[in-house]
Amino acid sequence: MTAASSLRSKDLLGTENLSAEEIGLILDTAESMRPIGERAIKKVPALRGRMVVNLFFESSTRTRFSFETAEKWLSADALSFAAKGSSVEKGESLLDTARNLQAMAPDLIVIRHSCPGVPHFLARNLRAGVVNAGDGAHEHPTQALLDALTIRRRFGRLEALRVVIAGDITHSRVARSNIWLLTRMGASVVVCAPPTLLPPRIEEMGVEATNDFDGALAGADVVMMLRMQLERQGTSFFPSTREYFKRYGLTAARLALARPEAVVMHPGPMNRGVEISSDVADSPRSLILEQVSNGVAVRMAVLYLLLTGHSWDGEPA
Amino acid sequence: MTAASSLRSKDLLGTENLSAEEIGLILDTAESMRPIGERAIKKVPALRGRMVVNLFFESSTRTRFSFETAEKWLSADALSFAAKGSSVEKGESLLDTARNLQAMAPDLIVIRHSCPGVPHFLARNLRAGVVNAGDGAHEHPTQALLDALTIRRRFGRLEALRVVIAGDITHSRVARSNIWLLTRMGASVVVCAPPTLLPPRIEEMGVEATNDFDGALAGADVVMMLRMQLERQGTSFFPSTREYFKRYGLTAARLALARPEAVVMHPGPMNRGVEISSDVADSPRSLILEQVSNGVAVRMAVLYLLLTGHSWDGEPA
Amino acid sequence: MTAASSLRSKDLLGTENLSAEEIGLILDTAESMRPIGERAIKKVPALRGRMVVNLFFESSTRTRFSFETAEKWLSADALSFAAKGSSVEKGESLLDTARNLQAMAPDLIVIRHSCPGVPHFLARNLRAGVVNAGDGAHEHPTQALLDALTIRRRFGRLEALRVVIAGDITHSRVARSNIWLLTRMGASVVVCAPPTLLPPRIEEMGVEATNDFDGALAGADVVMMLRMQLERQGTSFFPSTREYFKRYGLTAARLALARPEAVVMHPGPMNRGVEISSDVADSPRSLILEQVSNGVAVRMAVLYLLLTGHSWDGEPA
Repeated sequence: MTAASSLRSKDLLGTENLSAEEIGLILDTAESMRPIGERAIKKVPALRGRMVVNLFFESSTRTRFSFETAEKWLSADALSFAAKGSSVEKGESLLDTARNLQAMAPDLIVIRHSCPGVPHFLARNLRAGVVNAGDGAHEHPTQALLDALTIRRRFGRLEALRVVIAGDITHSRVARSNIWLLTRMGASVVVCAPPTLLPPRIEEMGVEATNDFDGALAGADVVMMLRMQLERQGTSFFPSTREYFKRYGLTAARLALARPEAVVMHPGPMNRGVEISSDVADSPRSLILEQVSNGVAVRMAVLYLLLTGHSWDGEPA
Repeated sequence: MTAASSLRSKDLLGTENLSAEEIGLILDTAESMRPIGERAIKKVPALRGRMVVNLFFESSTRTRFSFETAEKWLSADALSFAAKGSSVEKGESLLDTARNLQAMAPDLIVIRHSCPGVPHFLARNLRAGVVNAGDGAHEHPTQALLDALTIRRRFGRLEALRVVIAGDITHSRVARSNIWLLTRMGASVVVCAPPTLLPPRIEEMGVEATNDFDGALAGADVVMMLRMQLERQGTSFFPSTREYFKRYGLTAARLALARPEAVVMHPGPMNRGVEISSDVADSPRSLILEQVSNGVAVRMAVLYLLLTGHSWDGEPA
Repeated sequence: MTAASSLRSKDLLGTENLSAEEIGLILDTAESMRPIGERAIKKVPALRGRMVVNLFFESSTRTRFSFETAEKWLSADALSFAAKGSSVEKGESLLDTARNLQAMAPDLIVIRHSCPGVPHFLARNLRAGVVNAGDGAHEHPTQALLDALTIRRRFGRLEALRVVIAGDITHSRVARSNIWLLTRMGASVVVCAPPTLLPPRIEEMGVEATNDFDGALAGADVVMMLRMQLERQGTSFFPSTREYFKRYGLTAARLALARPEAVVMHPGPMNRGVEISSDVADSPRSLILEQVSNGVAVRMAVLYLLLTGHSWDGEPA
């Protein structure tokens, strides 16, 4: 497989429509940009004078901070808006908001919104590129890309790895984006959840599905735990967090069922003692903080590729 | 008329006291700065190292975004503060807040406040320049300037045009700033509103006033619709939005009463189906999105002229 | 005493552990950086490409604005986060938040938090430097340093001055940081408060304590008034603000008890008519606005010394 030299779309809306070549290009670019974050002077002029607008209609520390860091390191100009204080409060339609933004000529819009499809709607209506930073329970493509970078850095490949994704599959955009990306890249994906949190016919996405966490872990190379979104679930999908932890929490004993070299991942923020025990979260097998570091590199790569339309050759000395 | 080569004041508080020469200077400067926004690299070093503070005590997406975009494009340093989280909550007087800001040596303050006169008060007490980004129902001078730029770009002039401003005249700072500017530049202004929303003795501002929208439209070159500020009006000034639309909403049928080349404007955000129909808002005669684009250019011009004290000669290649 | 050429710690958590040499270094550096703020182009490239994260878990206008101004003038990259909209809402532990931040490689974190010790906790767990911008009633070291710079600029020294600190000593981080710094530098400190607002055994910090404001003022060189934090005090520590002003408010008559050359200071925001009368606050003996200006210089010095690890030699022309 040869990596592509550019992305086909002006937008990154999901992993569903990314080709293996495009995924390879983003990961290779992120890999070559990673060293920028390890220098004393973390700044290259690659995107000077390009305007990126960060629109976060759902609160987020880590994702917003990660994008803003990537923008600073690449010298882009960035404006950030939270939902409060926007025209949305005044009842303006999303399309009018988008057109108004467009009229101020931003080059790229990074958007998080609780409603699935909002980034796609913007993308269709704007000349500016759009990056989906999470749309409801639909997609969160840069999370899946940073997860892939993290796995690839550890195992040297994505192909033929057994990746178990465990937790609230139904409501997880992280799960969805990871399933599309990992299956496209030849990994073998198992999703595991209580019956109430496992969508019907999920196998049609090319994954194995099970309610048996212990069984799923056998032979796993990667165990990817999802955040139990306690603040979102209006109705109760399981008896108690204690009961949940007992059946679906990742403990050291349970992790011992996976391969000896298996690694643990989590998109954060973690609920320690709900979906993951503290000793596992903090163990040497946890790649959780590497995921965060790789997130900045992946976002730099995505911003660069979308904004310039060509590949990164490193920077002039 | 020769354009002035600089503004007389360190502040832009309203259009009421701008001379025709000053208005010409701002519009000419904005015109020559417009191309900056059409380049791949939207950045000139004109205001490098100048500090602009954006103080928004009322929420705003488009105005704040427009100013912040203008600041980025001119390479100014910008700090932005919203009302929440400020010392204002701790009961500090506005004058103390202003003096404290001054002690940190900003070069220019852009302020929006619900109380008329606040920008003027700051301007009297600060060495820094002050730009009024909207003070209650009083003035919003950069809006009137961007409206003027938009009209001038279409018709080549402001003189002798018939401009109808329709909607809630009483509570509109946009109307007030436009009336002063347009009459100063020789346009003929008609204001039109239901009796409850038309201030008494408005004719003393040099305009024609009427409750008859259809009559007002005859011979109009420009139809400027105001936002019905449904979120502000505590008491009811009209029976229902449906009734309002029937009498004062701009429809295609009604627009046909104006001149064949008449254009439609709106400061946004629009209430479609309240003061304007969607087909008119989206028609080729609508300049609404051009207004937004011109807003960045006008704000660049105002920032540049106030901060440097001299005219813009373009930039060195 | 020779000033040190660098700070011993990667963090500035308080004045309690600063040596006289380190204090001298910070004040000398601030003094030599002050002229940057007096130029037309307020910008030196000293911290280009260094990333500073401002985390304000308590609202603040002046302190946040002061740090952000210092960051801009030194060309640092800055990201700012308020408490709302952060993962803290999602129940993530402070340590996880800190580790996640760390994984994105910021160079320095400026933090204000209502809980004493939070900055120290972060500092122990992060490679990045940490600056305490106020932790509960504990410390606010940059405030004490800017107060010291202000006094030193007026009197040429700190040694052997009589400094009266009056107000709510118990709940004041400003008082605590000033007491440590001033006593370390050889000043003679008197704290004065009503019995309910004076901590027991405060004399062990090396100060004189009294409930008698008039007596304390005799021979004072500096009168430092504290803010009565009316919005924080759940229970009543004094009968009424009127009564408080009568006994502990600084009036012109009372100030006449101090030395003829005595000066008045206040960290802001002031409650005029509660702890200080307006005529005193606005008199030529008030250094209150100089404190604000000096705040930017002190914060530039602290950021520079912590981030570069060496002293400031001025900038290349």
